[in-house]
Amino acid sequence: MIKVNVMYPYSEGARFDHVYYRDRHMPMVKARLGRACTYYTVEKGLAGRGPGAPPAFVAMCAFICDSVEGYKAAFQEHGAEILGDIGNYTDIAPVIQISEVVVERSDRARTGSSPTTFGYRIGLSESG
Amino acid sequence: MIKVNVMYPYSEGARFDHVYYRDRHMPMVKARLGRACTYYTVEKGLAGRGPGAPPAFVAMCAFICDSVEGYKAAFQEHGAEILGDIGNYTDIAPVIQISEVVVERSDRARTGSSPTTFGYRIGLSESG
Repeated sequence: MIKVNVMYPYSEGARFDHVYYRDRHMPMVKARLGRACTYYTVEKGLAGRGPGAPPAFVAMCAFICDSVEGYKAAFQEHGAEILGDIGNYTDIAPVIQISEVVVERSDRARTGSSPTTFGYRIGLSESG
Repeated sequence: MIKVNVMYPYSEGARFDHVYYRDRHMPMVKARLGRACTYYTVEKGLAGRGPGAPPAFVAMCAFICDSVEGYKAAFQEHGAEILGDIGNYTDIAPVIQISEVVVERSDRARTGSSPTTFGYRIGLSESG
C-alpha cells in the first residue's frame, strides 16, 4: 500500500479555495483514478509548532493506493485534466511525495495491506 | 477532528530507524496520549516528484484526535518522555503542524467528525 501526498506550502495571503478543493477537485481526481486509488484524505492547515506559528502547509491531501504503478498509469491518462483544474483553487505549487504506508491506522489490524476477500464485518463502535 | 502531523525532512545519509519508530516509539506515544488520540498513522518516504527525486520527508506520522486541547493536555503531561525518545531513532528535527481533518477518508460517510454513540456496524467489505 502506498500513499501519494500532495502538500501545498503555506504563504501569507496566498489563495487556496478549501471548499472547491474538497467539493470539486478531489472528487474529480478520485473519479479519474478509479480503482487505482482506494481512498483519499484531505486536511486544512491550522497551526505550526509554536504559539501563533502558521502551518507549514495550508492544505494537504493523500491518495491511498495499492501500487505506485497503478496510480501512475491512471494519472498519466488523466493528468492534463487534473493539473488543469489546480488553478481553480490555488496558485501554490505543491510538494509531492510517494510514501510506503507503514501503519495505515493504529486501531485496526490491517497494516499496509489491502483486504483481499469479501466478508462481513460486525463490530461495536465506541465513541472516542 | 484534528490531525497532528510530524514530518521528518529528508537529507542524504541522515539516520532514521524506521523499525524503532514503528515498533517502539509510536506505540509508546499512543500509550501516553491514551484517549486523547483516536489513532495514528505512519509512513516511510519513498520518492519525490521526478525520477530519482528523494522524498521531501524521510518519515511522517499523524495523530488523529478529537481536539487540539485534548492532545496538548496529554502531550504536556508526557512530553519529556516522548521528546526524550526521539534520539533513539533519529537526529532529524521534525516539522510539526496541526490540521483540521476535512475528509478523514473518502470511502466512508464519516467526514471530520467522531462517532458519538454506541452501535453496531454491519457491512460488506469488498476487495480493492
